[in-house]
Amino acid sequence: MTVTGKLRAAIVGSTGYGGVELIRLLQNHPDIEITSVISSSSAGAPIEEGFPHLTGIVQRNLDGVDAAEIAGRADVVFTATPSGVSAKLVPQLLEAGLKVVDLSGDFRLKDGAEYEQWYKHPAPSDSYLQQAVYGLCEVFGERTAGADFISNPGCYSTASLLGLIPALQAGWIKHDSIIIDAKSGVSGAGRGTSLMVHYSEINENFKAYKVNKHQHIPEIEQTLTEISGEKVTVTFTTHLVPMTRGIMSTMYAGMNGGYNEQDFVNLYRKYYAGRPFVRVRDAGVLPATKEVSGSNYCDIGFATDARTGRVTIVSVIDNIVKGAAGQAIQNLNLMMGWEETRGLGYTPVYP
Amino acid sequence: MTVTGKLRAAIVGSTGYGGVELIRLLQNHPDIEITSVISSSSAGAPIEEGFPHLTGIVQRNLDGVDAAEIAGRADVVFTATPSGVSAKLVPQLLEAGLKVVDLSGDFRLKDGAEYEQWYKHPAPSDSYLQQAVYGLCEVFGERTAGADFISNPGCYSTASLLGLIPALQAGWIKHDSIIIDAKSGVSGAGRGTSLMVHYSEINENFKAYKVNKHQHIPEIEQTLTEISGEKVTVTFTTHLVPMTRGIMSTMYAGMNGGYNEQDFVNLYRKYYAGRPFVRVRDAGVLPATKEVSGSNYCDIGFATDARTGRVTIVSVIDNIVKGAAGQAIQNLNLMMGWEETRGLGYTPVYP
Amino acid sequence: MTVTGKLRAAIVGSTGYGGVELIRLLQNHPDIEITSVISSSSAGAPIEEGFPHLTGIVQRNLDGVDAAEIAGRADVVFTATPSGVSAKLVPQLLEAGLKVVDLSGDFRLKDGAEYEQWYKHPAPSDSYLQQAVYGLCEVFGERTAGADFISNPGCYSTASLLGLIPALQAGWIKHDSIIIDAKSGVSGAGRGTSLMVHYSEINENFKAYKVNKHQHIPEIEQTLTEISGEKVTVTFTTHLVPMTRGIMSTMYAGMNGGYNEQDFVNLYRKYYAGRPFVRVRDAGVLPATKEVSGSNYCDIGFATDARTGRVTIVSVIDNIVKGAAGQAIQNLNLMMGWEETRGLGYTPVYP
Amino acid sequence: MTVTGKLRAAIVGSTGYGGVELIRLLQNHPDIEITSVISSSSAGAPIEEGFPHLTGIVQRNLDGVDAAEIAGRADVVFTATPSGVSAKLVPQLLEAGLKVVDLSGDFRLKDGAEYEQWYKHPAPSDSYLQQAVYGLCEVFGERTAGADFISNPGCYSTASLLGLIPALQAGWIKHDSIIIDAKSGVSGAGRGTSLMVHYSEINENFKAYKVNKHQHIPEIEQTLTEISGEKVTVTFTTHLVPMTRGIMSTMYAGMNGGYNEQDFVNLYRKYYAGRPFVRVRDAGVLPATKEVSGSNYCDIGFATDARTGRVTIVSVIDNIVKGAAGQAIQNLNLMMGWEETRGLGYTPVYP
Repeated sequence: MTVTGKLRAAIVGSTGYGGVELIRLLQNHPDIEITSVISSSSAGAPIEEGFPHLTGIVQRNLDGVDAAEIAGRADVVFTATPSGVSAKLVPQLLEAGLKVVDLSGDFRLKDGAEYEQWYKHPAPSDSYLQQAVYGLCEVFGERTAGADFISNPGCYSTASLLGLIPALQAGWIKHDSIIIDAKSGVSGAGRGTSLMVHYSEINENFKAYKVNKHQHIPEIEQTLTEISGEKVTVTFTTHLVPMTRGIMSTMYAGMNGGYNEQDFVNLYRKYYAGRPFVRVRDAGVLPATKEVSGSNYCDIGFATDARTGRVTIVSVIDNIVKGAAGQAIQNLNLMMGWEETRGLGYTPVYP
Repeated sequence: MTVTGKLRAAIVGSTGYGGVELIRLLQNHPDIEITSVISSSSAGAPIEEGFPHLTGIVQRNLDGVDAAEIAGRADVVFTATPSGVSAKLVPQLLEAGLKVVDLSGDFRLKDGAEYEQWYKHPAPSDSYLQQAVYGLCEVFGERTAGADFISNPGCYSTASLLGLIPALQAGWIKHDSIIIDAKSGVSGAGRGTSLMVHYSEINENFKAYKVNKHQHIPEIEQTLTEISGEKVTVTFTTHLVPMTRGIMSTMYAGMNGGYNEQDFVNLYRKYYAGRPFVRVRDAGVLPATKEVSGSNYCDIGFATDARTGRVTIVSVIDNIVKGAAGQAIQNLNLMMGWEETRGLGYTPVYP
Repeated sequence: MTVTGKLRAAIVGSTGYGGVELIRLLQNHPDIEITSVISSSSAGAPIEEGFPHLTGIVQRNLDGVDAAEIAGRADVVFTATPSGVSAKLVPQLLEAGLKVVDLSGDFRLKDGAEYEQWYKHPAPSDSYLQQAVYGLCEVFGERTAGADFISNPGCYSTASLLGLIPALQAGWIKHDSIIIDAKSGVSGAGRGTSLMVHYSEINENFKAYKVNKHQHIPEIEQTLTEISGEKVTVTFTTHLVPMTRGIMSTMYAGMNGGYNEQDFVNLYRKYYAGRPFVRVRDAGVLPATKEVSGSNYCDIGFATDARTGRVTIVSVIDNIVKGAAGQAIQNLNLMMGWEETRGLGYTPVYP
Repeated sequence: MTVTGKLRAAIVGSTGYGGVELIRLLQNHPDIEITSVISSSSAGAPIEEGFPHLTGIVQRNLDGVDAAEIAGRADVVFTATPSGVSAKLVPQLLEAGLKVVDLSGDFRLKDGAEYEQWYKHPAPSDSYLQQAVYGLCEVFGERTAGADFISNPGCYSTASLLGLIPALQAGWIKHDSIIIDAKSGVSGAGRGTSLMVHYSEINENFKAYKVNKHQHIPEIEQTLTEISGEKVTVTFTTHLVPMTRGIMSTMYAGMNGGYNEQDFVNLYRKYYAGRPFVRVRDAGVLPATKEVSGSNYCDIGFATDARTGRVTIVSVIDNIVKGAAGQAIQNLNLMMGWEETRGLGYTPVYP
């Protein structure tokens, strides 16, 4: 029962970085109230014990994961869980009548076989895969309106797709020439401990990983293929940058004509007109990750090269905001018929 | 003329880090509207040119510094200027009938001679030094109410004073035993270029500077002397940490009795009751700088040592928020008779 | 007059990062003695004043730039000067009978017109451009033997060329398909102060710069064209990583056949047989920049993708060692007929 | 059997940061040959698998821990093991006739009861505690000469003791006034994974830990008490700096007279005369951690304050070199009667 009149939200996976970012961002949402923070691993403990930055802000103990209990406390659930966990939990939440925004990768692919190939565990049942709306807001926002179940795009996917789709849809770039060289801050790897996220191994280091093997590849290709109408296969490299937040996708494609940077700026500004979270930079200006840090913006810039006939597209986001928690709230806003910017008016934190 | 009914604010020094942080924080203040962003060095240029993170958020050209023009556009002025500049500008602004919150150090000391000794240029005229209210909100908040002219405390001073005052006032620590070992992120040095803030010189490096010579020493001593009733002289070391934001003051003092950590927690919680921006941590828990990053909190923890009879007090803030722009807005809230938290409900950005 | 029997070396530009790295590395060279450290800007001052890490190690005042004086003190000169300066100085040094290893970019291009297009100042006279040997040791080492004048390759160029040449020479990759996505630590920008190297602007940030405009492009294309026999034009992006040392070039090319990773490993190990500073990693293993930090190694790994027919080649170096001072000493070793590893037996500093 | 004539060394704990640093430094030691790299956890695997920076440099599989086997292969053993492990292993190695330099803390305290209080596990047998020479080279070097068993000082202890001893021995500082505010890079916490060393938790963060509880306290007090002749108890705070390498101890003490900075410089230069690894900086100059990074130096500077009668002493080391592997080799040099600098001529890596 809601006494505030606000939409009641539960967050599953509240002790991961996506979960605590949802908490941070929702503190200032005028129409949403967090009524349950949920963690399978730490149920019963005060959330500020593991996250002292929330001291005095969220004075709440973590709840366990129980679909029926959640349904009694919340109207909508954000599932910021590891892949494999959502596959099982989300159907229960939907059956219980809850709206769901799923931040795991479990419902992003329409093809269960492809899911199993890239994620290495069994796919959710096909009906849920088909029901899930892939919530890339600025591209598929109209599908989100009124939906009950959103699959929130991956962080790399969000940066990459927003940077490629207008040009691909316009036929300006060759669909079989796309190379994505992506770089991410370490928070994208989550809060789990491993040598891969050990400070002394990451600091003053730059490394590539999962080249052509990252699980965000199939959702990128699925979406680009839908946009293009032709089967798109991308070369995709991910790198780890010694910083906490931020993703840059530097993307290369052969052009189908002699377009220059201003042409691209015009095309993209037209495509993203009325969508304030995508900022297309002036010709000759490329965005840096810090310029969107802590905010829900995706900034895009271009460099065309007449010598090679290729365009270089640079797209940046904060991986935990636009790449996760921020876009999830933006999706919920769209589901509810609210302005997509509601509660998301965060200016980037700079420096 | 204000059509919004909001308080109109101008920011002098909008192209420094304190200035752009004021812009960030004021975006979400319900009762304040920025009507002029001012920079002597870049007047005429769009602010987003030098600070692309503001693209599409603040679409405004920088104004020049002219007290009369400012008075036509604003009700209150934040002067985030280098020391020496405010000394000249602030009297003009006050004469023009504006409220002023000064973030420079020019009006923090009551004794002009002392100012000249530490700041190495001529002091402002004494009447302004006496008029200025030293705006350490949680200690002198009642002086701020209704004031027209606030001198905003220094970043090191804020962290250090909030950590020392309750114990000193209670007589629990020896006034002649205080040692402050302070550490700051690099943003405290401002946006000016120099070898001291060169990335390759700072990264993977830790250095001490201005030992016993920092210009925040006299305001700390002036305030502690007022609180204690006895002349207080501190040992004060500043260090540069390879990070952008954050200050920690680790403070040492001999105790006048056998107090333990819980005693200190109780004392400080009583002192800061009703002041939400100071978070006194549970006994045995020490705060880290990232736990307040991007927010207006000052978090404080204690370690007492029966072996030596000393207490170690750890106090952390975000130097640009509670140590500058955030406390300035908090002061303005108090000046206006608003709740001190208004427009400052920022959860720390973590991680 | 040399009493030690060692080769006497002078370093012009001793107060830049390339210069001090030469000093560090040469300390342990058994056959070279530094007899003059030279700086136009700081002549007369002790070098340890600006570089306190050299305290007690190099107790020497900086000399001014005078070709005749240098000739009296040294047998060989390393010119670690800004581009434009070497263009004028090197001919004087060569005339004075000195051997020269030039670390600026002034003598890397054979075509003066191309130099002027990319460097934006007048080219050195053509005879010196032709005389200079482009000292990419593992590729053109035999040209270096006995030479008097070496132009040391650029940092980006070294990482990129060593990673591309074996495959291009073998005809395994399409010469018109090469894309180089390069990332560098900040030390590559030198010790000069600017907003671009300001700690607070770089830390927790990742940015692209000079896309398709970097002055290392023409030397890469000149060399690849020589190797390939066909005119090679590359797409080349440079990024700044929030770290001090290290370069990674992630390179993409279409393959002319169905080669797999082991094929590439075999090809490259054969090409670099007997050249210990290039370490070709096992199939499936990609190098990270920290794994060569402080050392003269260039490590290379591969990922082939049958889906797209492209190979991704990852090449890493320490930009100040293999990308500057280390390769310069390696070149001098080759000039003198010594083993190329002499005095360069530095194990990477890890972590 | 040694064919090279070199001293044969084994390293137990070769997969920790202390162990790999011993490997790095010993590569260039003219009189020592590594004949076994030992790891209980990874025995059988090539060391370059876990430490790719050693590719092609140390082509050796890890051996298991077996005192008899070690005795067959080595003359001296470095035990870079966790505390508690050395306590059991070292006696076996000594019994087997090996020389031992122990880098764990197990043999630093002479009083077993005190060991158990701070380390929380059973102390080694008393005879070994008494036999072990506390190898603070510049202070107790003469005890090391000819010894068979050295206990290598802790990293915090080395920086702190070298900075305090000359003044304390001279009676210039009050023995009951010593406060040590120490800061360390993250490598000091070792390679084990935990939230405490998670990149996203450490980066852009500064935290205090183990205040007055760090296990290096008793060895500092034991040594200062021996030097002073009076029971010394210190206040000791440790902080974690977002960097990999480096320790700074900022130390405070009341002075017994009106000494100035030059007095301290003179006193310390006299004390450390002939000991090249301690560099006493000129009056007014304080060292930074990067100025000793990668090297075996300990740099010390002073700030005296006539206002408070206190001196601030700043001492920096590279925690893995002078604070661990470097000092261990320095100790071995002394044990063997060699020059203490042998094989340790590493210039700090800067920047």
